[in-house]
Amino acid sequence: MDFSVQELAAFVGGQFAAGPSVEARVHRASSIPEAGEGDVTFYTNPRYLPALKTCRATAVLVPDNFTEPVPPVAIRVADPARAFAELLERFAPPPVAYPPGIHPTAVLANDAEIAEGASIQPHVVIEAGARIGARTVIGAGSYIGHGVHIGADCHLGPRVTVAARCLLGDRVNLHSGVVIGGDGFGFELAADRHVKIPQTGIVQIDDDVEVGANTTIDRARFGRTWIGAGTKIDNLVQIAHNVVLGRHCIICAHVGISGSARLGNHVVLGGQVGMVGHIELGDGVQVGAQSGVGKSAPPKTVLLGTPAAPIHEMKQQYARVARLEKLVQRVRRLEEAIKTERSTPPAL
Amino acid sequence: MDFSVQELAAFVGGQFAAGPSVEARVHRASSIPEAGEGDVTFYTNPRYLPALKTCRATAVLVPDNFTEPVPPVAIRVADPARAFAELLERFAPPPVAYPPGIHPTAVLANDAEIAEGASIQPHVVIEAGARIGARTVIGAGSYIGHGVHIGADCHLGPRVTVAARCLLGDRVNLHSGVVIGGDGFGFELAADRHVKIPQTGIVQIDDDVEVGANTTIDRARFGRTWIGAGTKIDNLVQIAHNVVLGRHCIICAHVGISGSARLGNHVVLGGQVGMVGHIELGDGVQVGAQSGVGKSAPPKTVLLGTPAAPIHEMKQQYARVARLEKLVQRVRRLEEAIKTERSTPPAL
Amino acid sequence: MDFSVQELAAFVGGQFAAGPSVEARVHRASSIPEAGEGDVTFYTNPRYLPALKTCRATAVLVPDNFTEPVPPVAIRVADPARAFAELLERFAPPPVAYPPGIHPTAVLANDAEIAEGASIQPHVVIEAGARIGARTVIGAGSYIGHGVHIGADCHLGPRVTVAARCLLGDRVNLHSGVVIGGDGFGFELAADRHVKIPQTGIVQIDDDVEVGANTTIDRARFGRTWIGAGTKIDNLVQIAHNVVLGRHCIICAHVGISGSARLGNHVVLGGQVGMVGHIELGDGVQVGAQSGVGKSAPPKTVLLGTPAAPIHEMKQQYARVARLEKLVQRVRRLEEAIKTERSTPPAL
Repeated sequence: MDFSVQELAAFVGGQFAAGPSVEARVHRASSIPEAGEGDVTFYTNPRYLPALKTCRATAVLVPDNFTEPVPPVAIRVADPARAFAELLERFAPPPVAYPPGIHPTAVLANDAEIAEGASIQPHVVIEAGARIGARTVIGAGSYIGHGVHIGADCHLGPRVTVAARCLLGDRVNLHSGVVIGGDGFGFELAADRHVKIPQTGIVQIDDDVEVGANTTIDRARFGRTWIGAGTKIDNLVQIAHNVVLGRHCIICAHVGISGSARLGNHVVLGGQVGMVGHIELGDGVQVGAQSGVGKSAPPKTVLLGTPAAPIHEMKQQYARVARLEKLVQRVRRLEEAIKTERSTPPAL
Repeated sequence: MDFSVQELAAFVGGQFAAGPSVEARVHRASSIPEAGEGDVTFYTNPRYLPALKTCRATAVLVPDNFTEPVPPVAIRVADPARAFAELLERFAPPPVAYPPGIHPTAVLANDAEIAEGASIQPHVVIEAGARIGARTVIGAGSYIGHGVHIGADCHLGPRVTVAARCLLGDRVNLHSGVVIGGDGFGFELAADRHVKIPQTGIVQIDDDVEVGANTTIDRARFGRTWIGAGTKIDNLVQIAHNVVLGRHCIICAHVGISGSARLGNHVVLGGQVGMVGHIELGDGVQVGAQSGVGKSAPPKTVLLGTPAAPIHEMKQQYARVARLEKLVQRVRRLEEAIKTERSTPPAL
Repeated sequence: MDFSVQELAAFVGGQFAAGPSVEARVHRASSIPEAGEGDVTFYTNPRYLPALKTCRATAVLVPDNFTEPVPPVAIRVADPARAFAELLERFAPPPVAYPPGIHPTAVLANDAEIAEGASIQPHVVIEAGARIGARTVIGAGSYIGHGVHIGADCHLGPRVTVAARCLLGDRVNLHSGVVIGGDGFGFELAADRHVKIPQTGIVQIDDDVEVGANTTIDRARFGRTWIGAGTKIDNLVQIAHNVVLGRHCIICAHVGISGSARLGNHVVLGGQVGMVGHIELGDGVQVGAQSGVGKSAPPKTVLLGTPAAPIHEMKQQYARVARLEKLVQRVRRLEEAIKTERSTPPAL
């Protein structure tokens, strides 16, 4: 992008106080703490007001009612976040386009079916019986196992693995390094050794799911590990065998979900949450970061802590533990009072 | 599989009440919560009884003494889990076979030694001095470093890295995305900068070890990082330099073990456990999920929490913390009683 | 290495008591718990004294003032750790050299610029507009996206992804499986569905940064996710969009840093630490393993626990919680005392 402040204000439909800086040029979008000369930024969260007061950006989009004096030229708009998002979209570099076709270095089984408009990038391997849907991109170095079915308009980043027989819907987005369909972690102890329990099921991923870099989703012991439509999974998440996630869930980075756990729709798990197996979280359950969930919870519950409890209880508990020293002091005073009481003859 | 209920009962050697449904056909195995028409499932855990009472499966394997009325046809067997496992094994799709030979797209050093029956999949790289044992499969896109020795009957999934000089025994199973032999994380602070400490050791993995997808095991500072025979490691685990794991351990997903820690045999670490470096856990130690282990522990200890303590102490501690509000109220009542005591002249 | 004990002592400039073992030969370096015949080890940490007393090493480097009788020949030096490190360096296998040039199986865009001395290993993909600096090694199977710039003397292990437009300085070291520039995890809820917020920024990694195996660093929503010079990141770490790390930080394994968090210089995060987004840690802040950081902290703070607090407070809190049973007993005694007090007529 390359704008004068005046042109920028016109683009976002904003108001600004006239001044000498209106001819200054803006060519980049940045956050408040990072912005320098030539940058436009935006302000909505009061947490960033101190930073804005020393910000070296050339211009800042602010809410209509913002009146603080700040170094950048303040351009007032109804919704600064939305106006900034529109700017970004307008000036973002175009997304990389992967032209249709099969790269000559890709290795495809004779009976692999590649639909029209699909793009098979270099060094991809597609095994027997696999099907790739229309306009789907398979990133460089990815491995698509025997009998895998992938829908239309999917995007697999470089170096993704989808192992045998797993199923992906349409518009599924797998980032680089994702592993779908590794064996579930199941062993039986026999004569002091762990004997592998065959993991003969699959992973099924429904439409519009996104899976972050290096996340792993294991195949089921039998039947399927199942990710519902519209669910979004962050990086480095572990989803064990036979787990079922509902639709439109949000699973943050480093979450670990143990075998056969079930989540309803619109469940949100914060970063580093752990869940034991064979439990169920109802629709709309939310779990705070780092919590350890050991029991099922009804719809809409908000959980926190290890072992996880309803968030208001856990916050009270944190507060009580932090005040424990005061409680100890109160007990000490009581002990002294009792002692005095006992050693003093009652006043007559 | 495709059975009538009657044929199914015969196959598992089970009893069922005659009725019109005995001709209904079963063609899939599912868990209770997922099962629908045409599915067979099994029941052992009373936790699933409510789900079984509304289950739409066609048939369910139940224990001999099970008498509850449930929608599916109940087939009574001595051990439903075992009977179900046999069904699964009998009807599982055959595991993918990778025929012996070296794919023409693989890049092998002249002096790499590939034993008879080994299968080197597409786009594999095998460096100088490496040796691959008989019948071992090296998955597509894997990288086998200089001087690596891999035993017989191993299976490396697609996109595995085994870096220079690391050693694998026989029947080792590495899932997709595993990285063996990255540098240990060792630096020395010199004049405010971190200077890398050379990591010149190796990783040694003994027979019958399984390592889950995207797990990382770092090479030793010197000597070896060592994984004992029969140990099973889940996905996304981090094992640091010079760690030693004994035989037949179970290490669940997202565990992090810091440098030079040592585990005995048959140690079990739950998901997301963290261990500081230079400590030792004796044979048969078990650590609950998400615990943070900061000290060595003798054989057979069962630990929980952060900082980890013996599980019964930690469970009592959790209970005491949960009851803290009651303790505060008791102290408040005592304070009021003392106050009354003091302001009331003793009864004469 | 292959030494007599006498030659070894000469090499490290150490003193030893003469005896029959001085002709024994040493050919390997090991840690105390692992050392056997033919090994040299070293001793500095009293924690290892019991192990040293039963150690089967042939020789051990010990401090000048060490006088305990131990089985190995004790060679006294001023700084055993340093002398041992010199031994290791002298006898370490030479690091693997990757000769300059472009492997014929690599797939390079016509306009990719590869500087002199760079080594492009087998099955690498380098997209249009990318530039690779002098003497940089791109490991087998790595993917370098459109417009990526990588400096000189970098080392990328096998199977690394650097996605479109990301920037790497000089001497950057990315271990196998690293993913730089996956999309940030950003969605907006619209009519009950999560709509992807375009992630149009980049990742910028400055000089001398090291990143461990399978770590993921997401591209910015806009602007850049930025890793300062000299910072070292361990395996399986997640760094979200728009995070800024200062210079010379140490980030241990499994750490998760949420979006737009900012770290100063020389910050140290222990293993499995989690940080919420939009907070700032000042220069020199240190955070203990497994902590959950929910608030900004001024320079030099040392934090521990979840929610994280200054370490001395948190350690006191742990101690108080561990002693909670004693507090309960004290309260019980007080209750009994009060009861007695009340039921006993005052002594006259």
